[in-house]
Amino acid sequence: MSSSVPSTIQEYEASRKELIFADRAQRADHKKGQLSELEALADKVIREVRATEAASIWNREYEGIPHPFPGMEFLTGRSIIVQTKLFEILGKGCGLLHAHLDATVNVSFLLKTAMKYPAMHVRASTALNANNIGHVLPEMSALPQHLRTAGEIALTDHDYIPDTWVPMLKARESFDPKLGGPEGFDRWITAALTINPTEAYVTHNTVTKIWQKFQSTFIVSAPLVRYQPIQRQYIREFILSSIADGISYVEPRINFLRDAIPFIADDGQRKLAHREVLKDFEEVVGEVKAELKANGREDDFIAAKIIYSTIRFITPAELEWYLRDCIALKKEFPHFIAGFDLVGDENVLKPLTYYLEPLLKFREMQKEAGVSEIPFIFHGGETLGDGTEADMNLYDAILLGTKRIGHGFSLVKHPKLIELCKERGIAIEICPISNEILRLTSSMHMHPLPVLLNQGVPVALCSDDPSVFGNMGLTFDYFQVLAASEITGLIQLGEMAKDSIKFSTMEPEEKAHALGAWQKRWEIFLEYAVVEGQKFLT
Amino acid sequence: MSSSVPSTIQEYEASRKELIFADRAQRADHKKGQLSELEALADKVIREVRATEAASIWNREYEGIPHPFPGMEFLTGRSIIVQTKLFEILGKGCGLLHAHLDATVNVSFLLKTAMKYPAMHVRASTALNANNIGHVLPEMSALPQHLRTAGEIALTDHDYIPDTWVPMLKARESFDPKLGGPEGFDRWITAALTINPTEAYVTHNTVTKIWQKFQSTFIVSAPLVRYQPIQRQYIREFILSSIADGISYVEPRINFLRDAIPFIADDGQRKLAHREVLKDFEEVVGEVKAELKANGREDDFIAAKIIYSTIRFITPAELEWYLRDCIALKKEFPHFIAGFDLVGDENVLKPLTYYLEPLLKFREMQKEAGVSEIPFIFHGGETLGDGTEADMNLYDAILLGTKRIGHGFSLVKHPKLIELCKERGIAIEICPISNEILRLTSSMHMHPLPVLLNQGVPVALCSDDPSVFGNMGLTFDYFQVLAASEITGLIQLGEMAKDSIKFSTMEPEEKAHALGAWQKRWEIFLEYAVVEGQKFLT
Repeated sequence: MSSSVPSTIQEYEASRKELIFADRAQRADHKKGQLSELEALADKVIREVRATEAASIWNREYEGIPHPFPGMEFLTGRSIIVQTKLFEILGKGCGLLHAHLDATVNVSFLLKTAMKYPAMHVRASTALNANNIGHVLPEMSALPQHLRTAGEIALTDHDYIPDTWVPMLKARESFDPKLGGPEGFDRWITAALTINPTEAYVTHNTVTKIWQKFQSTFIVSAPLVRYQPIQRQYIREFILSSIADGISYVEPRINFLRDAIPFIADDGQRKLAHREVLKDFEEVVGEVKAELKANGREDDFIAAKIIYSTIRFITPAELEWYLRDCIALKKEFPHFIAGFDLVGDENVLKPLTYYLEPLLKFREMQKEAGVSEIPFIFHGGETLGDGTEADMNLYDAILLGTKRIGHGFSLVKHPKLIELCKERGIAIEICPISNEILRLTSSMHMHPLPVLLNQGVPVALCSDDPSVFGNMGLTFDYFQVLAASEITGLIQLGEMAKDSIKFSTMEPEEKAHALGAWQKRWEIFLEYAVVEGQKFLT
Repeated sequence: MSSSVPSTIQEYEASRKELIFADRAQRADHKKGQLSELEALADKVIREVRATEAASIWNREYEGIPHPFPGMEFLTGRSIIVQTKLFEILGKGCGLLHAHLDATVNVSFLLKTAMKYPAMHVRASTALNANNIGHVLPEMSALPQHLRTAGEIALTDHDYIPDTWVPMLKARESFDPKLGGPEGFDRWITAALTINPTEAYVTHNTVTKIWQKFQSTFIVSAPLVRYQPIQRQYIREFILSSIADGISYVEPRINFLRDAIPFIADDGQRKLAHREVLKDFEEVVGEVKAELKANGREDDFIAAKIIYSTIRFITPAELEWYLRDCIALKKEFPHFIAGFDLVGDENVLKPLTYYLEPLLKFREMQKEAGVSEIPFIFHGGETLGDGTEADMNLYDAILLGTKRIGHGFSLVKHPKLIELCKERGIAIEICPISNEILRLTSSMHMHPLPVLLNQGVPVALCSDDPSVFGNMGLTFDYFQVLAASEITGLIQLGEMAKDSIKFSTMEPEEKAHALGAWQKRWEIFLEYAVVEGQKFLT
């Protein structure tokens, strides 16, 4: 465009329109000319609902939330979000590409399920009282028959002997009424499995500190979640609650770490082989699909696959074992293994370069085994660093041929990598609420997502660890993104929902089917959004 | 580059080097091949000093700062910063392109100066006591002879009659010892003129809230700073302290708002004409330059110019008056008027489009008056908004031909505008500490500066309102930028220092002279950095 300053208002307005158009050309919301009448109307209505609520429900003072605003810190604003019409209307058909299986189901379901199994026990390193309950963590475990106890003592008794196992149910019932009784027990466990606003925004308000709390939630929950009978119900609940939120496809990461965080069989003793875990997963998915089909709802859920993950603190030699294990599973469950990843806090654990040798061999290993390709789907750039190892992981993820990037929070700093992501169709799994709670961004308004959208990088919104963050499903994440921008509207949300299917690891026909089903549900959703929105606005 | 995955470590390493190089090609620090031996050595030494201190001085616990880190919140980390070797070494020769004159000199100097003038009085809306001193603001003013008082009563007396003027000096001396006596008085005034960590990070921790506090500091300080005899010393101190920090050129914004915030003559009554303010400025600069010359230090300070500013809440008709006023001043002080700007919180005040008509006429008005060009140097995008009016100001600033952009915090979201800034040589005045304290970013690590640097956008670092933020000079801002990146080193800092001269409004010869002087001082600085750094490291 011309660099001379327009001299009349008319000329100016024309240049302005042209400039804004050029600037936003790569953002989905700007495809105005290409929208159907329904899309355009629904988009308009939703923008009006957003503006109305910004001036009403978000413009009051609440007990403990003196200055709320749309897009504010999630843990503080959540109670307002769920009261909005905007939240009620959202809920699309999409895929969930980035979630860690162990942290997908809400804690109350998990606890209720755990109570059913006499094998489940709990202990503490000291007798619990009002002074220490805030920092003493529960240790829970399924125990083999010979180690189970009658639970004659309460965790809150003065003479509780440190580290004595008590059956979960008994421990709950006998919890000191002064500490809240059974509900107090639930609160104690829940606090250990979730992050609260004070931790995120006050006591643990840096990336390093909050990761310590974050990791501790997994250490506490793993023995519950990974106890076979609970695990099967957990997977089932994960899929059912996803479907309820409009999610038609899931691709969770399952963390495999042989000795440190094993899966335990019904008897409370035997470690499950990884193939048994997949077998359970396959069976549960099969059951859910059969039930849906019986109800004529088979399009509500297309498929589930698993990204095989391990943690980036193992040695390269150990990684080689996991790569082989992943290949063996792929052989047995070709339709279930979607990719391979390394997870954990990138800021303190090993960078991808540390594992270069085994990672470079992976393709060859697959060929030798005669399995179809297992793509890398790496976490990368989940950091505030500029040129730190975590930031540099982005170079290596892309050089190693990653299919997507988990988080890619620091990608915005890298012009050449952005170009490559677009050229090669590498989608970014953006986890808005996770990034905010893990202190990469202080509110959605500081999140770099618009930078990626304006550059045309494909993005799939994801929830990461909803049981820890409280953002079950995907609606909360979509809400936060919509609330924090004047440009982002339904069209962009739809594009991201579609991209979450398009950039999944589904096979071409499966994907075409999923996209067709999505399109149908999208039309229904648009109708619904218009009707509900207009009702609200009048 | 090829999209196939390299198959050997050697191939991989070569591809990786190539990719990193391409990605960082536009960042000054990556011009490794073009560095002199001295530059390369100084850069290396400074990186080592930074790494050493990250692991030592930043790796301890301090009273009230349990988890410090380089690049942390400035108001909390300042006391550590000033203890570092890195801070001691920094201090370059550069230009200060973005500062608001009223907020450039430290508060203790201002107070000490104010005490010298019997015309200066202070009052409060109620008698001060321990309960209200935290929120009752001082009102200060130079009074004409007939309104001055003897000051028989203290502001802290029970029977102080609200809004009774007391001479500053008396008010200080008679301040209740229970409230700290004279030092308590100083603390009270200082708290009203600065932002403290609790305000920035706790009680006022959103952009909207902190701007309320921020603006109140100007309301309190204006009558002091704008009292002619104080103003002259204030300007002198601003220039001298800038020189002491290695700043050789300044281009502050002066806010003109006829009735609301006038400049007052010695007599405490008469409003100064704007030409008198410029006259004072010219004289003070002339004095300082003459003194430097007498000491053979004329290269230490090249020049000062002023960006004429007014506030974006006036009407378009009023703006036209200010544009004419600016042109009249340009006629009388052609070498002093550097540009025109509109200031104030973009998130709540009027957008540039509101003033389109008068702004589009400005060029023509200048031609008619026969003055040389007065460029727009607009604030724009000082916001977290995505598509809000404040964000949209960036389009208008560029369309209106802005020479630079003040802040441009949201520019990173705009690919086309970034392209235009590069094409047209529009430098961005980045104010890192200001952005952090005014809650656009929670720490330097979240600041989008690296995005601009990696895209090759010219940047000048600026201090904005150092008297309010406590970042006197420019060394604090350079420090924060250096501390928060593993890529940014001396070379990038030097580039930004040079750009602050290159993108100033100096005339070509003046600029050439300034750049020559800069180069000489840069070499001396590099030598110094090497010697001091090596001494520290051994």
